[in-house]
Amino acid sequence: MSAEASLPSMETIGKTFAGKNVLITGGLGFIGSNLAIRLVDLGAHVLLVDSLIPDYGGNLFNVEQVASKLTVNIADVRDPNGLRYLVKGQDFLFNLAGQVSHIDSMEDPMTDLEINCRSQLSILEACRYINPDVRIVNASTRQIYGKPVELPATEEHPIHPTDVNGINKASGEMYHQIYYDVYGLRTTSLRLTNTYGPRQLMKHNRQGFAGWFIRQVVQGEEILLFGDGEQKRDFNYVDDVVEAFLLAAASDVACGQAFNLGAKSPTSLKRFVELLYEVSGEAPNYRIVAFPEARRKIDIGDFYTDFSKIEATLGWTPTTPLTEGLSRTFAFYRENIERYLS
Amino acid sequence: MSAEASLPSMETIGKTFAGKNVLITGGLGFIGSNLAIRLVDLGAHVLLVDSLIPDYGGNLFNVEQVASKLTVNIADVRDPNGLRYLVKGQDFLFNLAGQVSHIDSMEDPMTDLEINCRSQLSILEACRYINPDVRIVNASTRQIYGKPVELPATEEHPIHPTDVNGINKASGEMYHQIYYDVYGLRTTSLRLTNTYGPRQLMKHNRQGFAGWFIRQVVQGEEILLFGDGEQKRDFNYVDDVVEAFLLAAASDVACGQAFNLGAKSPTSLKRFVELLYEVSGEAPNYRIVAFPEARRKIDIGDFYTDFSKIEATLGWTPTTPLTEGLSRTFAFYRENIERYLS
Repeated sequence: MSAEASLPSMETIGKTFAGKNVLITGGLGFIGSNLAIRLVDLGAHVLLVDSLIPDYGGNLFNVEQVASKLTVNIADVRDPNGLRYLVKGQDFLFNLAGQVSHIDSMEDPMTDLEINCRSQLSILEACRYINPDVRIVNASTRQIYGKPVELPATEEHPIHPTDVNGINKASGEMYHQIYYDVYGLRTTSLRLTNTYGPRQLMKHNRQGFAGWFIRQVVQGEEILLFGDGEQKRDFNYVDDVVEAFLLAAASDVACGQAFNLGAKSPTSLKRFVELLYEVSGEAPNYRIVAFPEARRKIDIGDFYTDFSKIEATLGWTPTTPLTEGLSRTFAFYRENIERYLS
Repeated sequence: MSAEASLPSMETIGKTFAGKNVLITGGLGFIGSNLAIRLVDLGAHVLLVDSLIPDYGGNLFNVEQVASKLTVNIADVRDPNGLRYLVKGQDFLFNLAGQVSHIDSMEDPMTDLEINCRSQLSILEACRYINPDVRIVNASTRQIYGKPVELPATEEHPIHPTDVNGINKASGEMYHQIYYDVYGLRTTSLRLTNTYGPRQLMKHNRQGFAGWFIRQVVQGEEILLFGDGEQKRDFNYVDDVVEAFLLAAASDVACGQAFNLGAKSPTSLKRFVELLYEVSGEAPNYRIVAFPEARRKIDIGDFYTDFSKIEATLGWTPTTPLTEGLSRTFAFYRENIERYLS
């Protein structure tokens, strides 16, 4: 059998989840809800846990189209008692609950710690005692690398976060690693980069620029681009990210490992903004301005990853071109923007 | 001025602390109390904060000889309100409070997180708002490197802890770094390796082997050496470690940096045990046995550091030969062992 032949196909993966119990923390959020919809399609029994913290990404509208086919449990991952009950009997746990704003993590570092660090440990403790066989995939982030010393960044890039959020996410990932090493919990972490697509938070601009810029184009507002616009980033369409979660969960070879996601080529922020106008057909309306101090201090310049490890190990590669992903994104928000504003 | 001439001398350093307000968290513990005694000698106004948690290293006897010359405040670093008051008006903060047992961190990971991770963030928040000019030196640990991929380990060695304690200590150190980078708090971290000497915890064997073995020799008990005894480690006598804290605190060039401590040459555990008998004059009484499972899983094999960075930057080098340090250690415990048993 060749190496390629041994890679899981999405067809096999579909069967992996049919009839299985799947828990998604942060399941009403951006990536969680897209994953949930896909898992419902694949025949899984999906349980979403989300706390619907007002400033976070959880949004009941995100799963409206499948509301009758899954279960929503409003709970906070900071509550260890609730979690101990909810992990019981699950075959898969997608661990996506998180505080994702770098800015907020500096203003309120304790909340970031509680959610991204303490709750992760709490969930792993619950699994260790209550459900040690559950397959866990954890949403980590390229933010743990901080300002890159080498590009593209592989998984061996030094862990050197530049904000409290990055530190706590690094801890969360390391706990997943240790619980595999020491207790054999079957954990995998995916280090996400800039994900965009339908169902992303758009209420404020503290959770990354992609969703915010898209909202501004849809609403005809001027985009302010910080720095010189030449900072390079790698963008993933959310469906490609969902596929990575499914592939990781379905493959025991991924246990005890962390994988970068990434794009086939990086894109400058200015080019990203230009593409927003090209794809949407709106008239360009943006301005390049100096960094506000608080953001400049935690800006990391260019960043893009080498994702060859997950490509070689799990056969994952992003398949949605940026123009195609943006086109689908605009179609979604043009129809639903009101559901993402308040 | 040559590079050497610009390095601080211990004479200059003595003057740095005279009349200054110094807070030591974990000040009744092993390194904290030795540091406190030295700072009292240097004329500092020393305030010790310690929670005297029964299984930890805090021991009022540790500072008995200087009890009238310093202030002891029993408080837990997990209490943010207390800390906000206590950091006020301090010129120096030596941040040594910690849960240091790797074993305990796996049994009770939440307590380890609260003390080594959450409390560090809480202390830094207190300093940021209440006393942003305080000079902070943080006790980090070589444990954050985990199982070494390269020896001797420099500060660039990957951060890859093998237990919960190592993860939380890594977070604690990274918070100190970020609070320098973003808020300009003048923080330095020292990554301690195996420290031994007077005033170390000896009540149980969950805080490292050095103190435990010394106790066993003093009490005529058989030493059980796990593995094959060939694992190499680097040992620092506590007075050398105290000197590193003083040098770091006195030198603004150390702000925003982390430094390894280390020994001039590594010593195998078997050789360390043999030295214990040679120096103490007791008859050898030890046995090499297989690792208990829980310890084997978090054992890291050989470990020793490259400490050339602190040598070049601060002029620190350990000056106490192992035989000399052990000799002083045995002299101390022969007289005081009863104060360390319960």
